[in-house]
Amino acid sequence: MTTSSFEDTIVAAATVPGTGAISVIRISGRDAVALADGIVDTPLAGAKGYSSHFGHVIAAGTSTRDSAHNDDCPYLKTDGIEVVDEVIVTVFRAPKSYTGEDCVEISCHASSYIVSRIIFLLIEAGARQAEPGEFTQRAFLAGKMDLTQAEAVADVIASQNAAAHRIAMNQMRGGFSNELQEMRGKLLEMTSLMELELDFSEEEVEFADRSVLRELLEQVLSHVSRLRESFKLGNAIKNGVPVAIAGAVNTGKSTLLNALLGEDRAIVSDIPGTTRDTVEDTIIIEGLPFRLIDTAGIRETSEEIEKIGIQRSFSKISSADIILGVIDYTKPLEVILNETKDLVSNVDLKSQYLIILLNKADILGSNKNVRLFNKDVLFTDLSLNSCENFQILEISAKTGSGLSKLKESLKVIEQKRESSAGSILVANARHFEALGKAEQCLRNVRKSLDLKIPTDLISQDLREALYHLGTITGEISTDEVLGEIFGKFCIGK
Amino acid sequence: MTTSSFEDTIVAAATVPGTGAISVIRISGRDAVALADGIVDTPLAGAKGYSSHFGHVIAAGTSTRDSAHNDDCPYLKTDGIEVVDEVIVTVFRAPKSYTGEDCVEISCHASSYIVSRIIFLLIEAGARQAEPGEFTQRAFLAGKMDLTQAEAVADVIASQNAAAHRIAMNQMRGGFSNELQEMRGKLLEMTSLMELELDFSEEEVEFADRSVLRELLEQVLSHVSRLRESFKLGNAIKNGVPVAIAGAVNTGKSTLLNALLGEDRAIVSDIPGTTRDTVEDTIIIEGLPFRLIDTAGIRETSEEIEKIGIQRSFSKISSADIILGVIDYTKPLEVILNETKDLVSNVDLKSQYLIILLNKADILGSNKNVRLFNKDVLFTDLSLNSCENFQILEISAKTGSGLSKLKESLKVIEQKRESSAGSILVANARHFEALGKAEQCLRNVRKSLDLKIPTDLISQDLREALYHLGTITGEISTDEVLGEIFGKFCIGK
Repeated sequence: MTTSSFEDTIVAAATVPGTGAISVIRISGRDAVALADGIVDTPLAGAKGYSSHFGHVIAAGTSTRDSAHNDDCPYLKTDGIEVVDEVIVTVFRAPKSYTGEDCVEISCHASSYIVSRIIFLLIEAGARQAEPGEFTQRAFLAGKMDLTQAEAVADVIASQNAAAHRIAMNQMRGGFSNELQEMRGKLLEMTSLMELELDFSEEEVEFADRSVLRELLEQVLSHVSRLRESFKLGNAIKNGVPVAIAGAVNTGKSTLLNALLGEDRAIVSDIPGTTRDTVEDTIIIEGLPFRLIDTAGIRETSEEIEKIGIQRSFSKISSADIILGVIDYTKPLEVILNETKDLVSNVDLKSQYLIILLNKADILGSNKNVRLFNKDVLFTDLSLNSCENFQILEISAKTGSGLSKLKESLKVIEQKRESSAGSILVANARHFEALGKAEQCLRNVRKSLDLKIPTDLISQDLREALYHLGTITGEISTDEVLGEIFGKFCIGK
Repeated sequence: MTTSSFEDTIVAAATVPGTGAISVIRISGRDAVALADGIVDTPLAGAKGYSSHFGHVIAAGTSTRDSAHNDDCPYLKTDGIEVVDEVIVTVFRAPKSYTGEDCVEISCHASSYIVSRIIFLLIEAGARQAEPGEFTQRAFLAGKMDLTQAEAVADVIASQNAAAHRIAMNQMRGGFSNELQEMRGKLLEMTSLMELELDFSEEEVEFADRSVLRELLEQVLSHVSRLRESFKLGNAIKNGVPVAIAGAVNTGKSTLLNALLGEDRAIVSDIPGTTRDTVEDTIIIEGLPFRLIDTAGIRETSEEIEKIGIQRSFSKISSADIILGVIDYTKPLEVILNETKDLVSNVDLKSQYLIILLNKADILGSNKNVRLFNKDVLFTDLSLNSCENFQILEISAKTGSGLSKLKESLKVIEQKRESSAGSILVANARHFEALGKAEQCLRNVRKSLDLKIPTDLISQDLREALYHLGTITGEISTDEVLGEIFGKFCIGK
């Protein structure tokens, strides 16, 4: 991408290739209008921005067949021209366009032949095939958007559910950028206060009121920390909130997975220990993605493969956000209590959620009332009556009863987590990493202030924090970073 | 499709689904602008045709999440609205639009989530999901195009090469329709002349000059016949000109096929009779499609499967337009002459083309000069010196020598056939069938004129011919025919 030059006018198909109704070809650069004008039979030179025009793409004397022969084949041409397609051409004038340059979009019939022919004609006229993400990179370089917004464009396109879409859309519209600007503003204020002091350092005067500096620092530090911490949730929403289905063998964990997914995803049998691999799949509940992870049933076993599976179960439980603890409701109360205790002891109820699912409720039938009483006993026995992160539901994975209540619980838990996370969620690993580095620098600043370290040394850490925050929005960027980011885009974006 | 009503406003994605830069959603109908106006934050009510507008699709209070909860999640909304996407909206005003109705195209980010969300919002607002081909059907019903042009839209999209594209584009632009109108005009003139006579039938006066009628009839009849005959070529161009690769066993037919295709399509071995099935594939030579058909080598055999293969070879040869007769150039002259005679006797050189390929020219090396002389002898012996449909080329399928000359020959033959076929080629089986029926009626008219049959009986045949021509353009059409035609379109077209 480092060879890209604003001298070039670039062209690419902007729509997904294939047979459909229409395709759109996008041209950007200072010759965009002139090049389009040269291949359509409607004048575009004086066209205003945001105006559309009906016309034909024509190839005058540039047919793939030699012109001598065309004279013999009257149907090949109409008035000596080859008509490639009927099109709608929309003109955008700099700077009011996606890239900030003059842009033209040609909407043609969705035929791979026509699309490649039109692109060929434009390249023949002097345009260059765009590289992946080059339109968005130009928008970034022209100052139409910062780097977080450019990255959000790819996330918007990739988002498959409402929650991921919301995060990406908010980022694309500049929500994250505004927070970063605010933080950078405060840090710059700190820096200028301290550098003023530095100019007069020989006079050993402290211009900057240390308590003001301290106040600004704490504001920024808590902001950076909060954003950094939001990555766990942001990433979960982007890729699905990890939900581990755990419990003893033969309690119906795989049946539950299949019931929630509405398909036969995991192999189910009456034989205890059927599931050995962890099986994963995603469900969307009211726009929120949950990544369901079926785990091997936990029991003492001598079977080697099952042993590995059980080890993995524990690891999946500890990395999940929500644990569905499945228990066979038809077992004696003592067993239910012990298995629940087992599950509670493997879950960190400060940061994780545990839903105990008393499964096979259908088999109990009329004996259920007795059990309902016992459920309260269970709560009390475990001293979990006031724990918000713990709940118990009766279900039957087999008949489906109680599953809508379970889905509702999952949704409510996730909405609660989101609402407590603040208005901006970080969902990009690059941002997470930069925030971590900035946080470290700011902690150094705090330490230095505590230790009354000389101003010039503090200033160095501040500048570094500013640098790391700057890499997020792209105020500070290298060709390498840009290549990395835009190289992942598709051509035409 | 019979239930479609112009009361409805229809909506569908017009671009191919998938992850790309942009997708376009198309809305058509009298409420198109109002419905789009209701979901974007830029005013469209007064928008002129062919104007584009930047804005956001917003879902006010119609989030998939309950509004009570949204208050807790400030980042879900901006000022109480859910931002679905940044879009470009282009307005087209009736009748200057694809369908002839008010139309709106919303260009959004190519995410399946966003596309389905926008379509959902429009349907919620009162639009209806379009049926396959409904946009084009509305254009037909509004008189924006006739049926041949509507059918050509699908052909334009489907065409994978320059030649098929040219036929479809010419048809879409009304070339075929104009010819049909001209013929119908002449037939209507005949009819009115004859019906005038009918009004005065009791007076036994022949108002219509029979020679004028005859002249008109012959003009139309020859025109209809020519169009009907063009179907063979039109269909060949649409689906590939059939080229049979024929010859004795082990002459290198499959090697030639692979060499022309540039890949290992057919199994090749030194064992005579390797190919038993006919193997087909298409190559494009300068925009012209050729369907290459490799056939089993012809020889006396007792092997049952090979026998069936050889029978098929003869049938493929007789239905091909061009036959490549492959002969082992290293064999004695007598064998070459006999095999050539065999091939000539199986080809109809009035309507088919035969190219004798003297293969394995590489093995001959310096002995080639002797052979070159013999080639002329071959021509003379067969008395084919002046036959335009016969030629001989030296090649080596193995080294590739002579293959560009062969491709050039194929191209020239096809261009010659096209140029002699006239300006319009019929490539649609429905049109071919209707032309055949019209031709039969017109032949009946000619017979009646010869036999001096009463005018009223002739008039009946004329009306029938007019009817069949009318079904082609759709001046006469039934819901069934329309359903058949537009049902094959994709949704959004």
